[in-house]
Amino acid sequence: MIGLGLIGGSLLRAASAVGREAWGATASEADAATAAADGFDAGTDLVAALRRAAAQDALIVLAVPLTALDEVLRLVAEHAPGCLLTDVTSVKAPVLASVRRLAPANRFAGGHPMAGTAESGWRAGNAALFGGAAWVTCLEDDTDLAAWAEVSRLAIEVGAHVVPLTAGAHDEAVARISHLPHLLAAVLAAVGADGGPVAMALAAGSYTDGTRVAATRPELVRAMTEGNREALLPVLDDALGRLGAMRGSLASTGGLAATIKAGYEGAQALSRARQATPAGVRVDLSAPEAREGLRALGERGGRITGIAGDIAIGEVA
Amino acid sequence: MIGLGLIGGSLLRAASAVGREAWGATASEADAATAAADGFDAGTDLVAALRRAAAQDALIVLAVPLTALDEVLRLVAEHAPGCLLTDVTSVKAPVLASVRRLAPANRFAGGHPMAGTAESGWRAGNAALFGGAAWVTCLEDDTDLAAWAEVSRLAIEVGAHVVPLTAGAHDEAVARISHLPHLLAAVLAAVGADGGPVAMALAAGSYTDGTRVAATRPELVRAMTEGNREALLPVLDDALGRLGAMRGSLASTGGLAATIKAGYEGAQALSRARQATPAGVRVDLSAPEAREGLRALGERGGRITGIAGDIAIGEVA
Repeated sequence: MIGLGLIGGSLLRAASAVGREAWGATASEADAATAAADGFDAGTDLVAALRRAAAQDALIVLAVPLTALDEVLRLVAEHAPGCLLTDVTSVKAPVLASVRRLAPANRFAGGHPMAGTAESGWRAGNAALFGGAAWVTCLEDDTDLAAWAEVSRLAIEVGAHVVPLTAGAHDEAVARISHLPHLLAAVLAAVGADGGPVAMALAAGSYTDGTRVAATRPELVRAMTEGNREALLPVLDDALGRLGAMRGSLASTGGLAATIKAGYEGAQALSRARQATPAGVRVDLSAPEAREGLRALGERGGRITGIAGDIAIGEVA
Repeated sequence: MIGLGLIGGSLLRAASAVGREAWGATASEADAATAAADGFDAGTDLVAALRRAAAQDALIVLAVPLTALDEVLRLVAEHAPGCLLTDVTSVKAPVLASVRRLAPANRFAGGHPMAGTAESGWRAGNAALFGGAAWVTCLEDDTDLAAWAEVSRLAIEVGAHVVPLTAGAHDEAVARISHLPHLLAAVLAAVGADGGPVAMALAAGSYTDGTRVAATRPELVRAMTEGNREALLPVLDDALGRLGAMRGSLASTGGLAATIKAGYEGAQALSRARQATPAGVRVDLSAPEAREGLRALGERGGRITGIAGDIAIGEVA
């Protein structure tokens, strides 16, 4: 585990808890000291951790911020070029590009656990963080299926279910359901606060719900939104187009029916997706169409919940 | 109580619970029958309820949707023109204009309890709905202070604290902290659902928080947002301006620091307002500057928590 913040720290705990031999390194002396005091195999020597990974043919998990990734990838390429590599960063295409450029010898399957809180650092983590969460594991045309399966097994062992997607499909989806929400929350929080003390005094559920994630550490929000620029721009344009049309309609006819109806239907779509009864699926990882089958499952909102030998077991509504 | 939906039904319960003689009428036969079966004095004869109010010099509370208000006001003017009147509608300037036009003889102080759920109808209500909630009671230049105090006493008796504001100040603030959140939630829910099953499968906290109120009944959201058009348009323009600037910045320099920082500071402003230690204030309602003092208190985020004789007792941070 390289990086022992909220996600890396939680994963070191969770992997240890399920019986894996796991060790971690972080540039933060405070996080390393606390993790070691908590009884985990953790330190600040990244190179030593990577050399040990190389010696034991371990899976390396990069849990550092996007801004620190390139530097760490150079160390990986130098000290552990034979290791299987994954990451837990919230954007996937930029990470894939960096890995191809800086650590081309490593087998790689990117990942993103859809879990987190507004907090950060080792102390914020816990072994149960991934329980019930979706964990995207990326499957490009050239991703080694065995590498993908090994990364996915780790995600499943720590309690998550796996959503197989390409990096591009992941980035497009999270632009909609994670990055746009953060940016709209920021705008709402700014417009609300401009209303002064009276607006704050009257703020109730719709405002506190809508602004909750605006309290996230700004550098984390910047890293994920700015890092996903390419996928985010068209999504932002979609939102701006809808808001502009709504503004025009309110100013001219005074009507907001179309906007509000579309939003209501969107809310129903989420509700339906969460209440749907899934059917079981099995994907034979040794079959020639396995890659396409897995990605199609992810695109349809399905998930892998177990991998037994060559068989991935999952469900889709 | 005219109207026995979520708010009117909760207020009939709450007023009865604190020992007031209270009765209600609603156009909904189902709500009237359920309320009566629950042991409340409720029926469908609005005229009879208003005549009884006139005979007993009762306070009339209009708890009907904005779209039904004018029709009810005509009945009030005909059958109970001497009664003190208030309402619980979520926009205040349009209601004030309707009252001035259709029931000019009635003394009137408008109100808005900042309480509610996504549910509606008698069955959704409960006597504790207003506990701890802000309840705006409106104080225009020509509002009778005794009328304002009587309406405010009802709000305080059922567990709310009172925020004295003009209708205009109320409408401006709720445009920011209630109507804009509903519209942004609608846009987010529509853009998210456009991402298909994979977006719904990956949706986590930021998305579910940000879209929660999009599940509100569309006609309720339309009534409040369309009814507050005048105050809402400049607030929407503020939000659109910020989003447009953000989009431009992401496309050109790739930076979102300004947007995210402003949102973070907005979130801190709400947090500070909620954690501030208030100081006690007293307003002598018989003093010539009472009206200005009350409105200034509301504008500063303060509240009235008790009225004893001519003294309004409150607090402000």
